[in-house]
This record gives sequence, structure tokens and C-alpha cells, in this order.
Amino acid sequence: MRERFYGELADLGRQLAAMCDTATAEVRLANRALLTQDRGVAAQVSALDAELDTARDRCERTAHSLLALQAPVAGDLRMVLAVVYCADRIERMGDLARHIAELVGRAEPPDSVIDRVRTLGELVATMAENLRTFVGDTDGTHFATLNSADERVDELHRQLMVEVTGPEWTAGVAAAVTVTLLARFYERFADQAVSVARRLDFAVTGDLPAPPRRS
Amino acid sequence: MRERFYGELADLGRQLAAMCDTATAEVRLANRALLTQDRGVAAQVSALDAELDTARDRCERTAHSLLALQAPVAGDLRMVLAVVYCADRIERMGDLARHIAELVGRAEPPDSVIDRVRTLGELVATMAENLRTFVGDTDGTHFATLNSADERVDELHRQLMVEVTGPEWTAGVAAAVTVTLLARFYERFADQAVSVARRLDFAVTGDLPAPPRRS
Repeated sequence: MRERFYGELADLGRQLAAMCDTATAEVRLANRALLTQDRGVAAQVSALDAELDTARDRCERTAHSLLALQAPVAGDLRMVLAVVYCADRIERMGDLARHIAELVGRAEPPDSVIDRVRTLGELVATMAENLRTFVGDTDGTHFATLNSADERVDELHRQLMVEVTGPEWTAGVAAAVTVTLLARFYERFADQAVSVARRLDFAVTGDLPAPPRRS
Repeated sequence: MRERFYGELADLGRQLAAMCDTATAEVRLANRALLTQDRGVAAQVSALDAELDTARDRCERTAHSLLALQAPVAGDLRMVLAVVYCADRIERMGDLARHIAELVGRAEPPDSVIDRVRTLGELVATMAENLRTFVGDTDGTHFATLNSADERVDELHRQLMVEVTGPEWTAGVAAAVTVTLLARFYERFADQAVSVARRLDFAVTGDLPAPPRRS
């Protein structure tokens, strides 16, 4: 019975790791679509996002049947519930990557901000990639690792908002709207990644790290 | 044992209903802060949001201890897991109401859009209020009820985005950024409310209604 439980828990971990891979691939593709303004690439993002939706549903069903059939307690229960939580957050990361791709074809981010947009994209893709290595790792300090990347994302988000609403913005209203939404989507993507890291730490240690700054 | 379980499940339901009340009060306060541009009112929103964070944590702890001690199955398990899911979504509704209030003091939405902004605020507050009556109700058709309000929210969001990026927008970039964010926050608030309704239906019926349109 216990052996079967740990076998199924390992399967859940593999499902979650695969979701991290898909989310990483999806946001990389969204970054590329955005920087090249390529609608064909943007359309591929949507297909990866649909994969993530299906993977989340499967993960949740597996976890629920594990709870019903094996009634885990303590750390094992925490781990199964963490998978449900994390799968939901990773699915949301996929939605946000899709939103980024959906901005392709609207007013482009002007040259004055494109370096910061590119950096945001690279930062959040690395955060998603890191998550994959955290799944099944018992280190318990992953939140701290991602939190410092998240602080850089927040700072870039802040800088972009100052620029967009400042007196030197000459790119017009429509581009300002694009950059506002882009900065927001990247920032939310990063927040979700931090939530996943935080919950994986909790599953291992039983202590929930202090929440990230609120956004 | 069973009696104790149902007593604790009823307590969880009361916690969730109280969270719906707080979220409703919070978004109503945020609407008022926004329409009056009153920073004092905006500051009160933050206090209600902190209450919701605490309530969510408490709800989650109660649910986890119920799972560990009582190991519910089938519909009972679905109900406990639904509470965890819904508490998380309602906490997020609180974050979004706080974001709306945080826009007070920035460039105001111009007169040309203020009626639509007011309608959005009223619609989402009613959605949050409806959620309270859904908790503990075994009707199973709540998703359909909220989904029609959500369609109106989506349509207003779409109209605002067309207006903001259209040629007749004369209110400037900073006001466009405010309206873009506002429309987004209201739309996300409504999406979370729909997710709660959908999950409550699932807890009762065992069937997850078709997902809302993706956003």
C-alpha cells in the first residue's frame, strides 16, 4: 500500500515537472513571437497553453484519487496538496504566456523599452526553468532563490510603468497600453513561479516561507 | 466521527461565506474610492484585503487538518478540496480589489468612460455577493448564473480597450494606462468569481461545468 502510494506520488511529480517544461517552452515561444512580431509563432503558443490545461486537469484527477484511495497524512498529504496547488499555478503561467503572445500584432513596444522587455522575458523563462529542478528536490530553499529573480522582475515592471506614464513617452497611447499589459503579464508570471517555489518548500519543510511582497 | 466531520465541514462553509462577505465589502469600498478619488477610503481597502489573507490561511489549515484526521472520500473529499480552491480564489479577488483602490491618485478615468467603469464595479460586486448565497447551496447551477454576468464584464472590458486605443481617445497616455489596468482588474475579479461558482457546482454534482472562455 505504501509502496504503491510512493509510486503514484513519483508519477505526480513527473507530471508536475513536465508541466514546468511546457510552461518554460511556452513563455520562450511567447517571448520570441513578441520580439519578432511573428503571428505564426504566436499561434503556436496557444497550442502549448492548451496542453498545459489538459495536464493540470490530469494532475488534479490523479491527486484527488490518491487522496481518496490512500488517505495520506502529514508530509505525504502536504505533498499531494502542494501538487494540486502548483499545477494550478503553472497552468496560470501558461495563460499569461498566451496573453503575451496575443499582444503580437497590436501596437509594438517602442525601441526605448525593448531591452527591458527582452530582459523581463529572459528572467521569467529562467524562473520557469528553475521550477523544474525544484520538483522532487528536498532542499527547501527554493523560494529564496526565485524571490531574488522576482525582485528584478518587479523593478523592471516599475521602471516600465514610470517610463510609460512619464513626460518623455512619445510612442503614443496604443503602445503604452501594450507595454502596460506586457509588464503586468510578465510580473504575474513571475509571481506564480514564486508561489510554486514557496509551496514546494512548504511541502518539504512544513513551514510556509513569508509571502512575497503583495501584487 | 461522521457527525464531527459534518460539523467541521459546516464550519468551513461558514468561513468561506464570511470570505465572500469580506470580498464583497472590499470591492464595494474600492469602487467607492475610485469613483470619489478618496485616498482615505482607498486605504481602508488594504485593511480588508489583509483580513482576507488571514481568513484564507485559516480556511486552508482547517481543511488540511480535516483531510488528515477524517480522510473523507467521494463527495465529502470534493467538498473539502473545493473549499481550499475557492478560498484561494476569493483571496485573489481581494488582491484585485486592492489593486483597483491603488489606482486612486493616479490619472483619473475620463468622463467618457466613467459610466462603464461604474457598471463594471457594480457587476463584479454583485457577482461576489452572489457567491455568498452559493456556499452550502446544493443547486449545482451557479456557474451558469455567474457566467452571464461575466459575459457582460468581458464585453465592457472589450469596449473600454477599443476606446482607449482608438483615435478618439483624447485623455492622454496616463489615463489610458489607468483605464487599461482597471478594466483588467475588474475582468480578472469576475473570472475568479466564476471559478468559485464552477468549483462549488463541481463539489455538489461531481461534474465540472465547461470552462469559461479563456482569459
